Formats: sequence, structure tokens, C-alpha cells
Amino acid sequence: MSHLDHLMKLLGRLPGLGPRSGRRVALHLIKRKESHLMPLVEALSSVAQHVKACITCGNLDEQDICAICQNPKRDRTRICVIQDVDDLWALERTGSFKGYYHVLGGVLSALDGIGPQDLRLQELKNRLENTEIEEIILALGATVDGETTCHYIQDMLKGYPLQITRLAYGVPMGGELDYLDDGTITAAINARRVL
Amino acid sequence: MSHLDHLMKLLGRLPGLGPRSGRRVALHLIKRKESHLMPLVEALSSVAQHVKACITCGNLDEQDICAICQNPKRDRTRICVIQDVDDLWALERTGSFKGYYHVLGGVLSALDGIGPQDLRLQELKNRLENTEIEEIILALGATVDGETTCHYIQDMLKGYPLQITRLAYGVPMGGELDYLDDGTITAAINARRVL
Repeated sequence: MSHLDHLMKLLGRLPGLGPRSGRRVALHLIKRKESHLMPLVEALSSVAQHVKACITCGNLDEQDICAICQNPKRDRTRICVIQDVDDLWALERTGSFKGYYHVLGGVLSALDGIGPQDLRLQELKNRLENTEIEEIILALGATVDGETTCHYIQDMLKGYPLQITRLAYGVPMGGELDYLDDGTITAAINARRVL
Repeated sequence: MSHLDHLMKLLGRLPGLGPRSGRRVALHLIKRKESHLMPLVEALSSVAQHVKACITCGNLDEQDICAICQNPKRDRTRICVIQDVDDLWALERTGSFKGYYHVLGGVLSALDGIGPQDLRLQELKNRLENTEIEEIILALGATVDGETTCHYIQDMLKGYPLQITRLAYGVPMGGELDYLDDGTITAAINARRVL
């Protein structure tokens, strides 16, 4: 296989891309070798070299302990458990959570063969030796695997003097009932609030 | 800016990607450093180093003269003029054209400031010194810029003992009239064929 075919194949396998967009991106880069292709090679190499997972929370940073874990101004009493680093980024963008995070690195999935030993669960337990922690917020997706993982963690943390909470389910902001699935409407009805 | 932010910015600027998919691709690659990120760096570097434009037709290959231009079995009497290398790939996939190609590297566009000097037009003229050539097929897109470029090339090649043709316009295979734009229907009516 030629160098070009190989590159197109690799690009076409990236999430959200396919064979056609792989070709398109490859061509785009070759036509802009100095301005786009070389800087991308540099950026990928730097990231491979410098970015690593925080040994405490699993966030990605350029230090062994990430900037969030090192920030003494955050709320030491709360840890928010998320599936992956992009969920952490999403929460940080909202600025609505001031505690610390714990990235699981996935959710339990019988289908994908992901068991408890594949997630950063022991690391979570280790962090709970710190008795300052009062609340664990399970911010996992509202999927079957997310629910299963929530239940598993709930069981695992029985006996710890902690409050375990999860995100509220309901109508997304801007959402119209007519366009929502039945599950969401049911969850929103069941969790209705007094005004 | 951190290495990771920089990488996400570069990825998000690729064609078909945006900030969100840039983040997603970056995270995907970091989580698979050995299996995906490093091979991609290798592939990009190899392409940057080895792939170049054919000095005759502008196609991309690893030699100064591309495999198509070197193939003596192709039809020496025809040159198909295309906008870009992906159009050449698209035509090659169909196997419907057996002649040689000439990649313009764009089309004339007042809006994007692309003039005749930005296209490989002089190179096309030079190739016509070869008197074997009987037909130039203008396989440019059916857009305003494509049309303008067709007219320009037609003018430029006046005086050469050549037949200049363009692709047929009409109903795409599998196309239903109801879903086609008026321009295509008009073109198909005007170019109707006797059965």
C-alpha cells in the first residue's frame, strides 16, 4: 500500500470520519504541507510526548497531577465520577461544579467486555480514605451501561459515610416535549418538582 | 496554550471537522497512543516526505512522474482536465476513462481571488505541443466557477487542432425528478436524447 493510501486509511478510521472524509482530509493536508500537515505532525508528537493521565483523577494534563487536582480552592468534599475526559471538559465548561473529578475510563459493558477491573474503581476507593469527602456525584450517561455502572458503584461504596448522588434526569433546556423520547418524558414526570 | 488545546484546534480546522469533533478525535488518539496516534504521526510524516505532485499532470504520487502518466497502455489521444486530485481519484474509480489527466489545482474564482496564473494552465498548453492529442475533456464541476473555467480554457485552446468536450449534464443515476433542482432538470431537458 502506498504511503498516501495508508494515511487515508488511518484518517478514515478516526471517530466521525469515513473513507470519503479520510481522503478529503489527506488531500487537504498534502496540499498544505508546510502550513497544515507539518504543524499537525508536531502537535501530535508533542501530545504523545507530554500529555498523560493524572495519577489521581485520570484527567489529561502535562503533569503527573493535573491542574484541577492541584487547585486548593476547589471543594474538597465532593468528587464527581465521569465516564471519560470529554465529560470532564463538558462539566468544566459549564463551571457548575467546583469539586474534584474521577475519570472512570469507561462504563461497565457486557457487550464490549468491559468489567469492573477495566475501570479506575480501585483508584476511586483509594481516594475515599480521605475522610474529608462527603459526596460522590455519579455523572454518567443516562444509558443502560451508565445505569449499571451507577448501581455497581453504589454497591461498592456501601459502608462509606458518604452521600451518593446522580445527575437529574428530565427535559433538556430548550427541549420540546413533542420531540423527546418516551423515556425522558417518563423520567421528567416522575421527577417533577413543586413550584 | 497547552499541547492538547493546540492539537484540538488543529484537528478542529480539518475539513468536515469542528471544535467538538476535534476534541473527540484528539481524545480518541491520546487514549490509543501506541496503536493509533504514533502510526498516524508516522503516516503523516511519510506522506510529507514521499508524496509529491506529478510534474506532468499534477496527480499525487511518490515519483516525479505519476503511475498514470508512466502507463504506456493508456489512450495518448485524450487528456481529461479536472479541478483537483480527488476528482481524478473519482474518475479512476469508475474506470470509465482510459486517457491521461491534467489537474488544474482549482477553478477560476473571483470570490476566492483565484486567477488563471494560479492554475496549471501553462502546463496544459505545454502538453499540447504533443500533437498526438485529439481531445481535451473538461470534467469540471457544474458550478459557476467550473463553467467560467471551462469557457476560459476553451478560449485559451482556440487555434489548437483539438476537440474540446465537457461532461454531460443531466439526471443523476437513481435520481428522481421530484428531488432535482430546476437547473438540472432544465439541463436534462435541453440535452435530451433520441431513443
